[in-house]
Amino acid sequence: MDYVVDPTGHTADELAGRFGATVVDADTVFADPDVSAIVIASAAPTHTLLIGRAIEAGKGVFCEKPIGLGVHNVRETAKQIDRASLPFQLGFNRRFDPHFVALKARIDADEIGRPELIVLTSRDPQPPPISYIKECGGIIRETTIHDIDVARWLTGEEPNAVYASGAGLTSDAIRAEGELDTVAITLQMPSGAIIVINNSWRVVYGYDQRIEVLGSKGMLSVANRPRNLVSAWSSDGIRKETPDPFFAERYAESYVEEIHCFLRHLASGSMMSPSATDGLKALEVAEAAHESLITKREVRVAYDV
Amino acid sequence: MDYVVDPTGHTADELAGRFGATVVDADTVFADPDVSAIVIASAAPTHTLLIGRAIEAGKGVFCEKPIGLGVHNVRETAKQIDRASLPFQLGFNRRFDPHFVALKARIDADEIGRPELIVLTSRDPQPPPISYIKECGGIIRETTIHDIDVARWLTGEEPNAVYASGAGLTSDAIRAEGELDTVAITLQMPSGAIIVINNSWRVVYGYDQRIEVLGSKGMLSVANRPRNLVSAWSSDGIRKETPDPFFAERYAESYVEEIHCFLRHLASGSMMSPSATDGLKALEVAEAAHESLITKREVRVAYDV
Amino acid sequence: MDYVVDPTGHTADELAGRFGATVVDADTVFADPDVSAIVIASAAPTHTLLIGRAIEAGKGVFCEKPIGLGVHNVRETAKQIDRASLPFQLGFNRRFDPHFVALKARIDADEIGRPELIVLTSRDPQPPPISYIKECGGIIRETTIHDIDVARWLTGEEPNAVYASGAGLTSDAIRAEGELDTVAITLQMPSGAIIVINNSWRVVYGYDQRIEVLGSKGMLSVANRPRNLVSAWSSDGIRKETPDPFFAERYAESYVEEIHCFLRHLASGSMMSPSATDGLKALEVAEAAHESLITKREVRVAYDV
Amino acid sequence: MDYVVDPTGHTADELAGRFGATVVDADTVFADPDVSAIVIASAAPTHTLLIGRAIEAGKGVFCEKPIGLGVHNVRETAKQIDRASLPFQLGFNRRFDPHFVALKARIDADEIGRPELIVLTSRDPQPPPISYIKECGGIIRETTIHDIDVARWLTGEEPNAVYASGAGLTSDAIRAEGELDTVAITLQMPSGAIIVINNSWRVVYGYDQRIEVLGSKGMLSVANRPRNLVSAWSSDGIRKETPDPFFAERYAESYVEEIHCFLRHLASGSMMSPSATDGLKALEVAEAAHESLITKREVRVAYDV
Repeated sequence: MDYVVDPTGHTADELAGRFGATVVDADTVFADPDVSAIVIASAAPTHTLLIGRAIEAGKGVFCEKPIGLGVHNVRETAKQIDRASLPFQLGFNRRFDPHFVALKARIDADEIGRPELIVLTSRDPQPPPISYIKECGGIIRETTIHDIDVARWLTGEEPNAVYASGAGLTSDAIRAEGELDTVAITLQMPSGAIIVINNSWRVVYGYDQRIEVLGSKGMLSVANRPRNLVSAWSSDGIRKETPDPFFAERYAESYVEEIHCFLRHLASGSMMSPSATDGLKALEVAEAAHESLITKREVRVAYDV
Repeated sequence: MDYVVDPTGHTADELAGRFGATVVDADTVFADPDVSAIVIASAAPTHTLLIGRAIEAGKGVFCEKPIGLGVHNVRETAKQIDRASLPFQLGFNRRFDPHFVALKARIDADEIGRPELIVLTSRDPQPPPISYIKECGGIIRETTIHDIDVARWLTGEEPNAVYASGAGLTSDAIRAEGELDTVAITLQMPSGAIIVINNSWRVVYGYDQRIEVLGSKGMLSVANRPRNLVSAWSSDGIRKETPDPFFAERYAESYVEEIHCFLRHLASGSMMSPSATDGLKALEVAEAAHESLITKREVRVAYDV
Repeated sequence: MDYVVDPTGHTADELAGRFGATVVDADTVFADPDVSAIVIASAAPTHTLLIGRAIEAGKGVFCEKPIGLGVHNVRETAKQIDRASLPFQLGFNRRFDPHFVALKARIDADEIGRPELIVLTSRDPQPPPISYIKECGGIIRETTIHDIDVARWLTGEEPNAVYASGAGLTSDAIRAEGELDTVAITLQMPSGAIIVINNSWRVVYGYDQRIEVLGSKGMLSVANRPRNLVSAWSSDGIRKETPDPFFAERYAESYVEEIHCFLRHLASGSMMSPSATDGLKALEVAEAAHESLITKREVRVAYDV
Repeated sequence: MDYVVDPTGHTADELAGRFGATVVDADTVFADPDVSAIVIASAAPTHTLLIGRAIEAGKGVFCEKPIGLGVHNVRETAKQIDRASLPFQLGFNRRFDPHFVALKARIDADEIGRPELIVLTSRDPQPPPISYIKECGGIIRETTIHDIDVARWLTGEEPNAVYASGAGLTSDAIRAEGELDTVAITLQMPSGAIIVINNSWRVVYGYDQRIEVLGSKGMLSVANRPRNLVSAWSSDGIRKETPDPFFAERYAESYVEEIHCFLRHLASGSMMSPSATDGLKALEVAEAAHESLITKREVRVAYDV
């Protein structure tokens, strides 16, 4: 039996209808011995609680990022997950994008030698509402954390030190709340590689998701994907289409692939990735970046080992 | 009840299994009053026969191009379809490609004024087997016919005259049989617009499907789509990926969309397109192109009106 | 002593001033025994006469294309040049463009195997005045002849047969005079290679000069050059600059290089290229294309051998 | 009289020969009352001395960057130049690159609103010899200083604070000397704009010089220029040429233009730019970046006002 749970009730019926599932409450799910795994896609503050209940009930978990808010909270949950030895996969969807997967395969095949300088550009069309910004913990915990995960994944390294700089430029509300919408983060890796992340929450030309990895033997880059393949040649220039408008379009394939991957690993019992540890480490780097904003220093990342 | 029919038997079971259909023979399908429509994807020589049986049985038809081999044969079948007033859609899939659809919408919106010069590039990675080439009637009836349909569809015009030139360059077998693998066709349209089609059956860099439409106010073009978004920057240059390998990948969306369109029109009873007439007219142009190859003249297209 | 001659008198003084030359009449030039060579850049109808006088006077000649108007006239002059054994170079400037030179070097190095299908796109921003069109003999003799020369140069082959199709679309004057502004020409080469040339005299996006050469092992192409390297990313798309506006910008380097080449060969006494024969053969193909327009047939090229 | 001075004597004769100048010693130049201006292109440690002598002799100066080594030294010289009111232009050549000039004009015309996030990528094919690295003061004073100048020029702002991070990755010699070849620098501007500079001295694909300026209304970017316009389409992908190999090719036009600009301003008596103050301020930011490397903090820039 497939279940859909949605306390806010908005879309549960439609979703259940499309897939022949039943709308129930969470208790029913956790109590049903035939349920082997759950997918958590609720608001971030509910994640650790739901993960805890799933562990108690002995169920596998696919959890949208983040594991939770607050590094201590997340550390505790990550330990619980480890001890329970239950299947757990975190929704760092970019690891499943076919373009990034192709990039990583070529780095791993040593096409460009050792990565030395990585530029990660990830920019959203507009900021979320200020209420959401407050709730999610700001742009670094909401957006940059994806780039931090990509940095760890591509290099196989844990950042030593991080520096962050930012500004609130897009609205009075963001400035008034001391929030940021434009940030640049530098990560220093143990190999000496330097990773520069830049994020903005205001780009009028669509969702901008680019990667360049400069290595000792060459560079690999991933470009944006235009909405379609049409170009217009006029007296104003040669105009290609804008990139995909936002994450739902750009990462459509990765959302499908990460769930398929979860199901395959659930069936085979093999190790899951990205793991709770991946979620924790990315958060630890994000927290260090926040500390850097305040102290105006490079901050060495404090990993919980 | 959904049926799958396959006299050669190879893949019917697998296909039926995937969609919960039943493998039967053709007689069963035509005899079942609950069947409202059939999809013909068999070898080209069987098309007119199967269309004829569907008309007798009063069933709608989605038929892979071509309607049939031989212009007289196809004219007869097109008339039968017309008289029967049954739903009929021809598989000129390129009309459903989202990139070409976007192109046509912008031409129709007068973004570039009146089309004056159109270049259609469509090239396959390799020739089909010589037996298939003989059976399908050669590159113009097999491949160019798609471009002829695209030309008619984009301009809304019927070619006045056609000239064709070609060569057999890729194999001794093709040359020995007097077949061609490399052709250039020029269409003259009533508005004065000139359309240049070039086809090759040997391109090592993938399936090459490009369109440019030069109009009085500008140009619109459709590029190839690279397999993925990765570029490699080395001492040899900046290398993007090759285009999609062949039609199954390049036109994956159009195959889905044309069937959806057929189903929607079947349900609504609205007019279908591309129609049998579209199939006939494209063939009439292709036949004129063949005549041009032999007479080495421009050939005025003889439409059956 | 360097001389400038200009019977229309407009710019001779300025030009002479810039280079420390003296403005004189043509007789002075031909009479001066210290003059070793002349550059003919006057109106086309004067070319054969001036070449004749240069031959009499024993002077080398760099002559802007065409050698002259009228194929009989040009044949005669080409023979005179041959008999005189004087240095002669024709201004087919595209052979000196560094991009096209790089293309040819790579074809010659067998990077793509044997050329099988070549597409030459050369389009001007706007038509010349109707008076000039009449004088120059029309778009094929004025514009296409450059592409014919490029085709001969790139392949090292002489076209067997040619077909031309065209329309007058850009002005009533052009139509009224039976002139063309939009043409497509197909050349059949002895190797079986097919060459498709398309020309237009109305492109709003700048001077469009592109080449693609598809060979048995791959393709080489030459793109347009944007006016500058700036791109604009807006909600309308990603916009690159238009190509160079016209030939003076696009082929600036080739005009310099062809004169340097002439001077080097003049000094060394080595053979010059493009030769009078190159000019004659390109014209013979252009004349065959004109005949094709009238007869609506493929025309076999009549070379004077 | 034009003079060439070269104490190392290597190329003075050839250069003088090409331009009809005379090779002399420096004293002769400074003593000649007919000399109105000098161009200093000697080794960096000699710049301030030569500027001092030019000021004494009342001559205008075009000086290759930097003004000198050591911020105190440069401050002193900049003050001397100011007091002397003599023509002085510094060789920040990038301000004269036509592509960057077009970029700046479009920013100034408010095409993209207020700049919010700028990414400056400037990477060299290989490091200079270790002896030169020691002499020039390292990658930040040698290479990054150009990007700092571009940042100031494009925004019209003076950086408030700077953070730098770097590594020595390309050779044991560089590591042994504590030098860097890979750096990322973040500049915070008074408007809130963030500027991210990344430099490397090891890129196998040529000289990489790119700019992106994200503003509130869009983005403008400047791409690399390929060596030529040829692309190769093979089973390995679609390959464009590498960028210009190094600065002499990429900035050829800017070197010419900056000297023309100097001569025009010399003739007209108008204000020169980039000025000694531009040189000083860029150096002050570079020095702050160096301090940041050591203190591992954001450093507020100490301008001498």
